[in-house]
Amino acid sequence: FQSLSVAQRYLLLAGAGLACLAAGPLLERLLKFLINRRQSRGRCRRQFDCIFFSGGSLLPPCQAASQALAAAASSSNDPAVFCPDPSDCRLSHSSQHPYFQLIRQLASAVRSLDLCMYTLSSPDLSALLLALSQRKPRPVRVRVICDSEQLHSLGSAIAKLRSAGLPIRADSTSYFMHHKFCVIDRSLVLTGSLNWTGQGTLGNWENVVALDDVKVVEAFRREFERLWQEFSPASRSAR
Amino acid sequence: FQSLSVAQRYLLLAGAGLACLAAGPLLERLLKFLINRRQSRGRCRRQFDCIFFSGGSLLPPCQAASQALAAAASSSNDPAVFCPDPSDCRLSHSSQHPYFQLIRQLASAVRSLDLCMYTLSSPDLSALLLALSQRKPRPVRVRVICDSEQLHSLGSAIAKLRSAGLPIRADSTSYFMHHKFCVIDRSLVLTGSLNWTGQGTLGNWENVVALDDVKVVEAFRREFERLWQEFSPASRSAR
Repeated sequence: FQSLSVAQRYLLLAGAGLACLAAGPLLERLLKFLINRRQSRGRCRRQFDCIFFSGGSLLPPCQAASQALAAAASSSNDPAVFCPDPSDCRLSHSSQHPYFQLIRQLASAVRSLDLCMYTLSSPDLSALLLALSQRKPRPVRVRVICDSEQLHSLGSAIAKLRSAGLPIRADSTSYFMHHKFCVIDRSLVLTGSLNWTGQGTLGNWENVVALDDVKVVEAFRREFERLWQEFSPASRSAR
Repeated sequence: FQSLSVAQRYLLLAGAGLACLAAGPLLERLLKFLINRRQSRGRCRRQFDCIFFSGGSLLPPCQAASQALAAAASSSNDPAVFCPDPSDCRLSHSSQHPYFQLIRQLASAVRSLDLCMYTLSSPDLSALLLALSQRKPRPVRVRVICDSEQLHSLGSAIAKLRSAGLPIRADSTSYFMHHKFCVIDRSLVLTGSLNWTGQGTLGNWENVVALDDVKVVEAFRREFERLWQEFSPASRSAR
């Protein structure tokens, strides 16, 4: 440094200053890139935003595959491998099938699944809830709110879930508890038009949208807790 | 510049260089701030993310207020002013009432409203659709897809809308076109559990979530267009 002229020293200093300044935004961009990559990886676990069930034209999924997937309750397994003979089976094994998309979203639950569902009669989906609640080594805490009229209706799977030990609550009015949403791990909401029935999942035009927006999740989480309290046996006997 | 020493000149140049470099990120931040402010202003027009209808315990909104709001089809008007006598009226005039929240979201339509609704019998909401489609000077383009069984069911408002000139399409199957969503101005989706019926809006527990996420809006917009084509008279006669 001593061997340099004054001008050269200033040039060197200015250059170093410029390099520091230039490095700031570059570092910022690098950080943003890393954060974005991490977030998009996190989102990959919630693979689909909008699930559309597409009326009678939809090829039904293979029941063996969907039941096995529900029992396994794992988001990483390919449904096709669960069918005894996929090459001979004429049903859908596509992992893009809306029914599989829905099952995969639900099976991603790790800690909790709070379900607020007008009517629940799908054997696959009720089997999935049971499998999650009994998952080893860490069971998922599953709670279910449903409509009072649907609690014991023909084909309802809810009484079965209750007798298996799942906590179930329902309204006590003639109005409908008509929600069709669930909150997974307090960080993801699924909502839309779909009742968890055979006709809903295999026949109708329906939508389920998966949302991880913090404000939306918080709103649905609070609504679930509010209804869970409102429909508690204690609240009722206090009336 | 000529009166300065060489060292001073380099210092000045380095200073100017530093200033330019520092100005870049500052300008970037200013731009981001302005863009964010504009976006959040845009979002203010869509005032609510999640609308919860809360069962039989909900005080019904004043019909006079909601009908007048629907007819005015304006997002800026306060429902209370439309009631002939709010001081004497025992119904709700709260602008936070979920029914008013929904009406305000729908009335914010400027160019288009694409409705995909299983059943539609609410006089207020069908009046709102008509008012929007006849709004002066710029009518909103309203299109409706509904379920075939609900087209002529008792109390349905859909036949009335069709005879007033609104384009209506429906499936031709025994399955349900069970969606309950609409796309407003190709930039906002409302979806959830709510059918546009009196019981839905005034009695049940329901949710409607408003989403302006670009990917979600695009998915619903495409699904609407797909169904609009699938249910067109031309597609049917081609079968």
